[in-house]
Amino acid sequence: MQTPHTIHDLDTPVPLVDVERMHGNLRRVSEYCRAHGLAWRPHAKTHKSPALAAEQMRAGAVGITVATPREAEVMAQAVDDLLLAYPPIGQARLRRLMALPRRVRLTVGLDSAEALGGLAAAAREAGRRVGVLVEVDAGMGRVGVQTAADAVALARAAADEEGIDYRGVMFYPGHVRDRVERQEDAIRALSERIGVVLEALAEAGLKPEVVSGGSTPTFWRSHEIAGLTEVRPGTSIFNDRTTAEIGACGWDENAYSVLATVVSVAVPGQAVVDAGSKALSKEEIRADTVGYGALLDRPEIVVKSVSEEHGLLDLSRTGWRPKIGERVRIVPNHVCVSVNLHERLYGVRGDDIVEVWDVEARGR
Amino acid sequence: MQTPHTIHDLDTPVPLVDVERMHGNLRRVSEYCRAHGLAWRPHAKTHKSPALAAEQMRAGAVGITVATPREAEVMAQAVDDLLLAYPPIGQARLRRLMALPRRVRLTVGLDSAEALGGLAAAAREAGRRVGVLVEVDAGMGRVGVQTAADAVALARAAADEEGIDYRGVMFYPGHVRDRVERQEDAIRALSERIGVVLEALAEAGLKPEVVSGGSTPTFWRSHEIAGLTEVRPGTSIFNDRTTAEIGACGWDENAYSVLATVVSVAVPGQAVVDAGSKALSKEEIRADTVGYGALLDRPEIVVKSVSEEHGLLDLSRTGWRPKIGERVRIVPNHVCVSVNLHERLYGVRGDDIVEVWDVEARGR
Repeated sequence: MQTPHTIHDLDTPVPLVDVERMHGNLRRVSEYCRAHGLAWRPHAKTHKSPALAAEQMRAGAVGITVATPREAEVMAQAVDDLLLAYPPIGQARLRRLMALPRRVRLTVGLDSAEALGGLAAAAREAGRRVGVLVEVDAGMGRVGVQTAADAVALARAAADEEGIDYRGVMFYPGHVRDRVERQEDAIRALSERIGVVLEALAEAGLKPEVVSGGSTPTFWRSHEIAGLTEVRPGTSIFNDRTTAEIGACGWDENAYSVLATVVSVAVPGQAVVDAGSKALSKEEIRADTVGYGALLDRPEIVVKSVSEEHGLLDLSRTGWRPKIGERVRIVPNHVCVSVNLHERLYGVRGDDIVEVWDVEARGR
Repeated sequence: MQTPHTIHDLDTPVPLVDVERMHGNLRRVSEYCRAHGLAWRPHAKTHKSPALAAEQMRAGAVGITVATPREAEVMAQAVDDLLLAYPPIGQARLRRLMALPRRVRLTVGLDSAEALGGLAAAAREAGRRVGVLVEVDAGMGRVGVQTAADAVALARAAADEEGIDYRGVMFYPGHVRDRVERQEDAIRALSERIGVVLEALAEAGLKPEVVSGGSTPTFWRSHEIAGLTEVRPGTSIFNDRTTAEIGACGWDENAYSVLATVVSVAVPGQAVVDAGSKALSKEEIRADTVGYGALLDRPEIVVKSVSEEHGLLDLSRTGWRPKIGERVRIVPNHVCVSVNLHERLYGVRGDDIVEVWDVEARGR
């Protein structure tokens, strides 16, 4: 393929990033963090690109969060301070972590003595120090120690392990998905739950230097969580349909969309585009609406269903009738899993392509 | 990475293919087709590997079905007879199709005069002949002409177009997802709907040489569809949780699984593995059950929820308590979208790796 100059040179389906909007998103997040004295450590799972991690560092991030060894390896190209927010289980994973460049200050979140023991042994063998955050379950019920006593025990074990620097605690409030204005009770419950842990740690002489939390849905209420020092939003660089639906961004703060072509209008009341579950993903929306995406320029038009290479636009509530060959931009429900389906992202200003980023950290 | 010899050398999450079971699946499908006089043209979207397409050809396939230009290009390495079961809209897509090797006998399914006109112009310009199947909506409501009259009109237009060989009709019964033993009424309705079209075409002197249909869920009832000459199952090479749940395969005919590691058991009643929506996909199951996958060796244990890098095994109905670091094999709901998340598939006999296939046709 020749170097594409505009989006008209691209085959569809293909992901576009509105560069202006992306920079606006980074700026707003960075300013909020500065205003509230929070360290900003964005999660690279959303973009999986070291160049975009570097943009986040330039915009004021203190470091980057990753989930997989591959993300750690790729982000280490651009960033010297990484948090692996994932239990480092298994020799293969530990070997890869220890092989990261020495200049990388590495911190790992974990929730078990087994994970801590394995990490400490690997750190000693590699002759490098690794920071540890004790992961606390803040109500999501996914990972994390369940009680303040367990948090204290694991923090003490970390503080006592040779090769390990105990740095604090982390949690992920992934269970809070209400609209932002309805999150008050959930944030208060979360704050109390974390508060009990922080108090117990302080009493035990294990006061955390880092209290890392924050997600994109709860992002703008992070300052209401007592004791929080750091936030790790991923999605907020691009936003997505879910983020807009719950009120954590405006629709016109959606920087990411998938460019698609109308390929069939044979069935009345709908138009079929070439972006399906292998371009948008088929992840149901966790908000008060339906479908798998919506048009960037006509958000009332929803992708009502998808199969692998087909997306069905619901035209029942619009007079707009696209022609075969017409192109549309679709905002997916969940941007992180859509990005992960593509090899590269095209940064655009209007229809002009001004940047190309490889989604380098996808895969394993 | 050194060449892995056994699955114990692999980082997780990683997709495995039980080679014995896969060959059994291919053999059963091939024998059914031979017994019922049906041409077998498997869909490559499931495996996206030219080596596996070649296996299908050796097992008796007449050619391969593809959906994207990339799939066509990659499969053309191994196969001389391709059906693009997707409307070829847009100059970029047409250029890539026309650039396929001359030895490839190409047929395209389409449902509009626009698609036909574009394809015919491209074929004439390239100086090659292209076959056409008229896509008929058999009740799914996705793509396909809606009436027998429309089918006749498009078939006639195809027959009249210079550069085009009108070959027949195709349909995809993706709406039939009942358990196999409860599909009788749906298959009868489908058969009648297609029958009306076939009759109208015959009356118009446009009797189709090819009547192409068939999906994995309806596969074993394909012989009940009057006039059918060809079937295009994708999933049946590997099968998956949905296919087993609807009775279109036995659980022990599942050839594909994702090997995953238990990374946390902090929350009671569950174990967390490192296969989430970026390894299994987060596609809800269309069958009488819940969750995003189940353990190959313990199908009663279900992946009750997933986030990007986490899968939560529901341990509420089992006494089994896995340890951190233990590995499990997970059968996903929908194999095609899981394969598409990985770079390569490891063919195994027991724990030994005997083949490695690149998922070469993923991406665009």
